Amino acid sequence: MKNYILNEENSIYYECGYSSDNAIFLVIDKERFFITDSRYEIEAKLFAKNCNIIIASNLIQTAKKIIKKSKIKKIFFDPNQISVYWYQNLTNKLDATFVPKPNLSKQKRIIKSNKEIKYIAKAMQLGKDGFDKFAKYLQKNGLNKSEKYLFFKAKEILTSKGKYDVSFDPIVAINQNSSKPHALPTDKKLKHNNLLLVDAGIKYKRYCSDRTCTSVMNKHITFKREQKFSSQLEQKIYNIVYKAQQTAIQKIKTGMKAKDIDKIARDIIDKAGYGKYFSHSTGHGVGLDIHELPNINKKDNTIIQDNMVFTIEPGIYLEDQFGVRIEDTVVIKNGRAVIL
Amino acid sequence: MKNYILNEENSIYYECGYSSDNAIFLVIDKERFFITDSRYEIEAKLFAKNCNIIIASNLIQTAKKIIKKSKIKKIFFDPNQISVYWYQNLTNKLDATFVPKPNLSKQKRIIKSNKEIKYIAKAMQLGKDGFDKFAKYLQKNGLNKSEKYLFFKAKEILTSKGKYDVSFDPIVAINQNSSKPHALPTDKKLKHNNLLLVDAGIKYKRYCSDRTCTSVMNKHITFKREQKFSSQLEQKIYNIVYKAQQTAIQKIKTGMKAKDIDKIARDIIDKAGYGKYFSHSTGHGVGLDIHELPNINKKDNTIIQDNMVFTIEPGIYLEDQFGVRIEDTVVIKNGRAVIL
Repeated sequence: MKNYILNEENSIYYECGYSSDNAIFLVIDKERFFITDSRYEIEAKLFAKNCNIIIASNLIQTAKKIIKKSKIKKIFFDPNQISVYWYQNLTNKLDATFVPKPNLSKQKRIIKSNKEIKYIAKAMQLGKDGFDKFAKYLQKNGLNKSEKYLFFKAKEILTSKGKYDVSFDPIVAINQNSSKPHALPTDKKLKHNNLLLVDAGIKYKRYCSDRTCTSVMNKHITFKREQKFSSQLEQKIYNIVYKAQQTAIQKIKTGMKAKDIDKIARDIIDKAGYGKYFSHSTGHGVGLDIHELPNINKKDNTIIQDNMVFTIEPGIYLEDQFGVRIEDTVVIKNGRAVIL
Repeated sequence: MKNYILNEENSIYYECGYSSDNAIFLVIDKERFFITDSRYEIEAKLFAKNCNIIIASNLIQTAKKIIKKSKIKKIFFDPNQISVYWYQNLTNKLDATFVPKPNLSKQKRIIKSNKEIKYIAKAMQLGKDGFDKFAKYLQKNGLNKSEKYLFFKAKEILTSKGKYDVSFDPIVAINQNSSKPHALPTDKKLKHNNLLLVDAGIKYKRYCSDRTCTSVMNKHITFKREQKFSSQLEQKIYNIVYKAQQTAIQKIKTGMKAKDIDKIARDIIDKAGYGKYFSHSTGHGVGLDIHELPNINKKDNTIIQDNMVFTIEPGIYLEDQFGVRIEDTVVIKNGRAVIL
């Protein structure tokens, strides 16, 4: 892939260490161009590395001139990233052929550098510290608080009072609400022995973390994996999901396909009789975007390699009763998965 | 515009009061369809109003079936919103013609309802309260703090410790850094008599606010419009920008064009001899998105009408010295602009 064009922030940031909300990144015959408008000139010059910085008022026209001048025959783009408006403007009156390459940037980012892994590990640590602080808050003050209030509190605590960004809006769900994989907070109040699902992540230097814990509410609530639920059914479901998650993590080896990992987790839940209540994929890559490659699902043929980073997060959702999801983010090192 | 298709969150939220990160909204002959996947089923049924909720695993194929069945001849879409990948999938083997209509949803949203104005006003109030609290913090503790630290503090205070979302990452810029319209925070420290530019907004019920203050740092710093700078040049530039901003706001009348407003502010700065240092537009619409219509720039022919909401934010940026921007968000009521 000698020639390509990008216009999405994280994809551009990955190329040169800087991005703005109005920019094009162009790679042509090993020449690299960062095109942005005058508002971002000073910072682009300070932060964008290994590229020619071009300040323009019409970014697309400027990119077209460079492409025209280079006389290249074809140039790759991500059809998920480029809008119809952009595409029509870009391709109009240009001889070069635009070749769609879905996930162009995400494919490049699938193997993380050690520095990227360090950032994700730090984001995970910030997230875990936040979970621990949130548990302490719940022990003392959680009882009778609404999901909506706990959602605000979780955000306040996880972001260190606004210091860090969340990777996504956290999910804080009690009992029946936890049976919705993407629950929005309601006025439902947290009671003793309730099941509480929390899914949250923090960003560090733009890199995301992602983690889910399902716990039981009491004076000693923690977000550790050992949980003692008051209901036998909750405990049974929790144990199945935990076994599926741990087994999948333990059995990951380089050379496997992503779909093989999904199958390990899914088979355990299937055999326990709850296959149809595990309605989503087993996991997804994590990096600059919260959803990257590989997809740990039924279909993804990606070969697992060292320095990939992804989540393992099976779940079982019993509508109108409760849901359980357990999620860790792992990095592949020396052929095996290590929990970050 | 009888038939149209949307796939962007705020556009969909505007139609039915709910959206998810995987959804299509389809309007065909007054029939309205909200298509999403099973993860969002329970909430879609609770919150999405005045539409048929369809749960599907392949959203595009489902939309195509509905379009095919309806036998409509043409359907509008926003070419800025729909990616090349989506477009190719959508249009493949369909008889209906897809007609591009740039800013389809933003055009619909240009006149705000009274409820929307109430939400934006509340977001503005939250923002102003945050500015006031931030000023109190600066009075006591601001001296010698770095821009980076003040950026975190501003976020903590403006979001009420993570309770609300910011409309965008705030800009906190000292002296020379304020000359970059979109400054990123640095290690530069705040000193007595420094010029401080803060641009920030808060969201309330998904609606954005936007406000910029340029102030002078001392024990009594406020974010009020009356400022006494230590340097004559700073005071001179501030007075020009303030006059441009106030005059533009006072002269706004329904029936004018958006570009006429831009001209009022720009003429004052031009006549003062600083025209080439006012490098951006005078303002932009504000709503569910932080940038909506109308554009208050040199070219926008939009006729100003009651219940439009937009910013008035002229600025002068002297590179390597300092920048001044003063921004309010206004609503048009009874033919005139009212500061929110």
